[in-house]
Amino acid sequence: MKVSVIGATGYAGAELLRILSNHPEVEVAAITSESHTGTSIAEIYPHLVGFYDKKLTSMNDLDQFADSQAVFIGLPHGHAMAIGRPLAEQGIKVIDLGADYRFHDESIYEAWYKVEHTHRNSGAVYGLTELYRQKIKTASIVGNAGCYTTASILALAPLAKSHLIDTKNIVVDAKSGVSGAGRGLSQNVHMAEMAENLKAYSIAGHRHTPEIEQALQEISGQDSLISFTPHLIPMSRGILSTCYATLQEGVKPEDVDQAFYEMYGQEFFIRLLGRGGYPAVKHTRGSNFCDLGWHIDSRTNRVIVVSAIDNLVKGAAGQAVQNLNVMFGLDEGSGLKQVALYP
Amino acid sequence: MKVSVIGATGYAGAELLRILSNHPEVEVAAITSESHTGTSIAEIYPHLVGFYDKKLTSMNDLDQFADSQAVFIGLPHGHAMAIGRPLAEQGIKVIDLGADYRFHDESIYEAWYKVEHTHRNSGAVYGLTELYRQKIKTASIVGNAGCYTTASILALAPLAKSHLIDTKNIVVDAKSGVSGAGRGLSQNVHMAEMAENLKAYSIAGHRHTPEIEQALQEISGQDSLISFTPHLIPMSRGILSTCYATLQEGVKPEDVDQAFYEMYGQEFFIRLLGRGGYPAVKHTRGSNFCDLGWHIDSRTNRVIVVSAIDNLVKGAAGQAVQNLNVMFGLDEGSGLKQVALYP
Amino acid sequence: MKVSVIGATGYAGAELLRILSNHPEVEVAAITSESHTGTSIAEIYPHLVGFYDKKLTSMNDLDQFADSQAVFIGLPHGHAMAIGRPLAEQGIKVIDLGADYRFHDESIYEAWYKVEHTHRNSGAVYGLTELYRQKIKTASIVGNAGCYTTASILALAPLAKSHLIDTKNIVVDAKSGVSGAGRGLSQNVHMAEMAENLKAYSIAGHRHTPEIEQALQEISGQDSLISFTPHLIPMSRGILSTCYATLQEGVKPEDVDQAFYEMYGQEFFIRLLGRGGYPAVKHTRGSNFCDLGWHIDSRTNRVIVVSAIDNLVKGAAGQAVQNLNVMFGLDEGSGLKQVALYP
Amino acid sequence: MKVSVIGATGYAGAELLRILSNHPEVEVAAITSESHTGTSIAEIYPHLVGFYDKKLTSMNDLDQFADSQAVFIGLPHGHAMAIGRPLAEQGIKVIDLGADYRFHDESIYEAWYKVEHTHRNSGAVYGLTELYRQKIKTASIVGNAGCYTTASILALAPLAKSHLIDTKNIVVDAKSGVSGAGRGLSQNVHMAEMAENLKAYSIAGHRHTPEIEQALQEISGQDSLISFTPHLIPMSRGILSTCYATLQEGVKPEDVDQAFYEMYGQEFFIRLLGRGGYPAVKHTRGSNFCDLGWHIDSRTNRVIVVSAIDNLVKGAAGQAVQNLNVMFGLDEGSGLKQVALYP
Repeated sequence: MKVSVIGATGYAGAELLRILSNHPEVEVAAITSESHTGTSIAEIYPHLVGFYDKKLTSMNDLDQFADSQAVFIGLPHGHAMAIGRPLAEQGIKVIDLGADYRFHDESIYEAWYKVEHTHRNSGAVYGLTELYRQKIKTASIVGNAGCYTTASILALAPLAKSHLIDTKNIVVDAKSGVSGAGRGLSQNVHMAEMAENLKAYSIAGHRHTPEIEQALQEISGQDSLISFTPHLIPMSRGILSTCYATLQEGVKPEDVDQAFYEMYGQEFFIRLLGRGGYPAVKHTRGSNFCDLGWHIDSRTNRVIVVSAIDNLVKGAAGQAVQNLNVMFGLDEGSGLKQVALYP
Repeated sequence: MKVSVIGATGYAGAELLRILSNHPEVEVAAITSESHTGTSIAEIYPHLVGFYDKKLTSMNDLDQFADSQAVFIGLPHGHAMAIGRPLAEQGIKVIDLGADYRFHDESIYEAWYKVEHTHRNSGAVYGLTELYRQKIKTASIVGNAGCYTTASILALAPLAKSHLIDTKNIVVDAKSGVSGAGRGLSQNVHMAEMAENLKAYSIAGHRHTPEIEQALQEISGQDSLISFTPHLIPMSRGILSTCYATLQEGVKPEDVDQAFYEMYGQEFFIRLLGRGGYPAVKHTRGSNFCDLGWHIDSRTNRVIVVSAIDNLVKGAAGQAVQNLNVMFGLDEGSGLKQVALYP
Repeated sequence: MKVSVIGATGYAGAELLRILSNHPEVEVAAITSESHTGTSIAEIYPHLVGFYDKKLTSMNDLDQFADSQAVFIGLPHGHAMAIGRPLAEQGIKVIDLGADYRFHDESIYEAWYKVEHTHRNSGAVYGLTELYRQKIKTASIVGNAGCYTTASILALAPLAKSHLIDTKNIVVDAKSGVSGAGRGLSQNVHMAEMAENLKAYSIAGHRHTPEIEQALQEISGQDSLISFTPHLIPMSRGILSTCYATLQEGVKPEDVDQAFYEMYGQEFFIRLLGRGGYPAVKHTRGSNFCDLGWHIDSRTNRVIVVSAIDNLVKGAAGQAVQNLNVMFGLDEGSGLKQVALYP
Repeated sequence: MKVSVIGATGYAGAELLRILSNHPEVEVAAITSESHTGTSIAEIYPHLVGFYDKKLTSMNDLDQFADSQAVFIGLPHGHAMAIGRPLAEQGIKVIDLGADYRFHDESIYEAWYKVEHTHRNSGAVYGLTELYRQKIKTASIVGNAGCYTTASILALAPLAKSHLIDTKNIVVDAKSGVSGAGRGLSQNVHMAEMAENLKAYSIAGHRHTPEIEQALQEISGQDSLISFTPHLIPMSRGILSTCYATLQEGVKPEDVDQAFYEMYGQEFFIRLLGRGGYPAVKHTRGSNFCDLGWHIDSRTNRVIVVSAIDNLVKGAAGQAVQNLNVMFGLDEGSGLKQVALYP
């Protein structure tokens, strides 16, 4: 099948190309970039030499997508809606890696992203594969889950679903490598300043907060309220999310274990390290895995769940391909069963 | 004045030597190491060439400390008590960088460290300078505060003291560079495995937990209970502590601000970045500063405080020298007023 | 076909398992380790969970290799000969990732490695695929090329072959990530000490020196003498080799270009960045590519060639699989056409 | 004494402020920046909070320098000449950290820097302290030595002076942390792309080449010709320079040793690790030291010298202060005797 990638020069776009080059069922048709139209993608990303020598086109030429069965969108939020609508209307499946199609209640999107939502009632499905698989199968548009949100929701979903925790009293302390900040230049990502550095940002205001709350509410059927704090870590890739929740009265450690094994026992891309397990981001580097470990703090009656992913794979391009596989009835792991790069 | 350093080959010991070489009032007498007796300290740490060419001695020869007015101890926990007692009995002031003298209730020490406490009722004072300065002035033995604990207690103390938070419902998510794991070798600190890696450890069981709780209880006069999670970060030095506490009813953002400025407004080594401020560990690298910023999350009614220190300076050797200065009536910043190494 | 891996717990062994899991024609039979016999490989390397759950066996049970058509050996030098001989005698193809089978003149091996060579006249072929492909096709034993040597020989071979340089006046300044030092623990690879650090080692005595000289002599038909200096770089993976050679009289820049394009123009795994090109190790990370760029310094009449590889892939496990493919008549890139992990 | 800093917002300027804050004889008067005039320096560099709260001024107001006895200039090349001339004419000593005053033959400067030299015959002295100390004492203008050049010249000077090497056949392979590329933003220094990366740049054309040659010619009285290759290393600070020279006939290892000990035996800031020594940049981090080790490769008749410095200290701001001390008859190490930050 043919697919196209809109907005290919960002890190998520480049990562999509990396993964798709290894996908046995997929051929990449158009690759677009408004800022580098006419340039070869391999000039911008020399690691792609030998795999892609296509010239970047403008997304505004819709004809080029005519023989694509699916189009991935890697644009900044607020820009996917304008191109997503005509593509969907042409019957092309859309997988948006940005935030435009992630919210069921567009007013939440508008409140947090400060942008008018211009493609309401699109029927988009939230693209966190393990939790929304059935709906993704028949979706026309998938709003691929965010990076922090994938790590955090996967960590908390079993507990929320089994009503083991108070979903209104959760702290999510998340840590990301600097590729999460994108390819754009800023003093924040200048290596001289960020090497051997570490800091929090967007406290109490990061836009992944309502996305996590939306998912936990849907899974638990209860209101959810979280304090979410992202941090910048001196490394390229990887997210570790440390999630703290208060256990409901009477919950036993075995109940917690059971919740995880029941929900994820059959999932290939979720590796359960068990109670007492310590995921390390490097074990997921370059792979589509989410590694999970959980701990009971009996002194404080909290459960602490730690999850590790590669922010550009399971947190972006890998999960997008996983969703593609689900949408088209392919083996869900097709093109994705790569071992992490370690050490 | 003369001082000696027992257990000088660990990172805290080496950092003490770095700082003391710049201290105008101090001369280093004996430097000891049981594992490298007879070796020159500069052979082990070539960055000290030009400053120290002393041979390492064994601490068991007590005579060598006779003309030292103070002795720093940089031994693993459980070993400082045996040497601390005879030193104190000889009238030599003791500053222990380990955990042996940090707890007022030795049974807590014994429960968390699994070691019998053999120097009870030593009169030791907890060495977190800004909070215990008055007692440190006249102390014979100071149990220098731990690295994570210094960062975490300084972040929460103003809120605890002013009764603005529920001291029994606190989450402290702390992140440390690998020097915090010590100089010993392990797969955990092998650079090939730890570069571009990130992980939590000792969840619900780290020994700095009761130390933080002890301080918050004394400051607030109320029970304290925290969930403390340390993380290993791919960098050499630095700690960032992200602390989450629930605000008491009716607390206003200005109350929070006031608590910080009242408590720390005159402190040289605590830099208040204010409400909305984001400390970065690199701004404290190699310096004795603790940088603090705080944030109100009105949606969840939490206050989030972020603190940054250099784990080997304010978190160990720097604070030890600060305590020395206080104990001997010197300018508290003597030898410590160095700008951080940035970038 | 079935293959086995002897000495799988080192980094090269683990990398072999990563690559082989993606190889469509290969199934892994036995995985051995003398130090961890009985343990699951995924316990030691959790990134392999989901791909390998085999228990590690002892290599001394030769029967377990009976249905393997080829065996990879990842043992320290001096140990491959003892197991290589019986395997070869049983008609099993051997690919040794160590140094034991790299030298045509065993006395050179003995002089540099200080070990007696006990498997002389083994008929082993030197496993630098692009240069020895024809011989590798029919080899029973391949001595897989070293990491520094692969990068350095590929950089200089076209110039040596075309007699454009003085092969007795070459400087090779090479830089490697710390995984090149192996998985063993030492202060050298302690992250607190090696992060933000950089140093040379084994000057004028590194064992890859005679290996480079051997290849250049064979290619040029002339004596070769190089000064080789390896450096440890604060990163996990990757080698950059900067090679300086004096041009023979009258050599023009176009002659240099032609030498590279003639020799490597059809090679998939060698990417020519051209005259003026600057390879970066990260563009090869996790891939089997060797990127090459060359520069003419007309002031000094030198040509400077820069090559970049991933030390564990093209410098070890990837090239081993490339050799396997050649030995068994498979597509040479089978299992190896993966895009580098960037950023 | 009062001094001022022109162009304080670059890394060298900020480092100057760090060092000067610890200098017992110096008070900083004006701090200028054309791009951030009116901003506080501590807003740009929060690590300076507590030490500097001055507002940045424009350098064009010459009156503000009237009570400064010396002015440091941290401007891009080509800009120091315009301000250096009027300052010198007012009798203010000038220490330029850029290239404008480094060349005795301005035509070499013009050829390599592509800028007209507008302050010829300025009487400027080259500011590599250990080699030009006598002239620096009475200089009005000092052209502070470059970072790569300081490391490389100090490595080769004893051999050039003692005529032990062929000064026309030298290879200098140098490696620098990314702060050497300055504070400006570029994809090259984006941490996501530069972490775990490594590359060469400016081969056969880097502007530090003629600066090294000039010094070696003056020291040896012979022509000098070098191939100089700089590399970008994934770390913030530090330079390692690996220098290869061919020994003259009959030179013995002891002659090499003697050359180093004779020239540098009494130098505090040059630490001789001896024949066989391996400098590591981290041992010099934040300090003004240059660590040197040398090796004889008898097979190739080469001497290989390795030198390590902190590019922002001995390679820029530290040496500038060292030169200030010499110019004003202060203790040469005043403000500079700080132990490196290790680990």
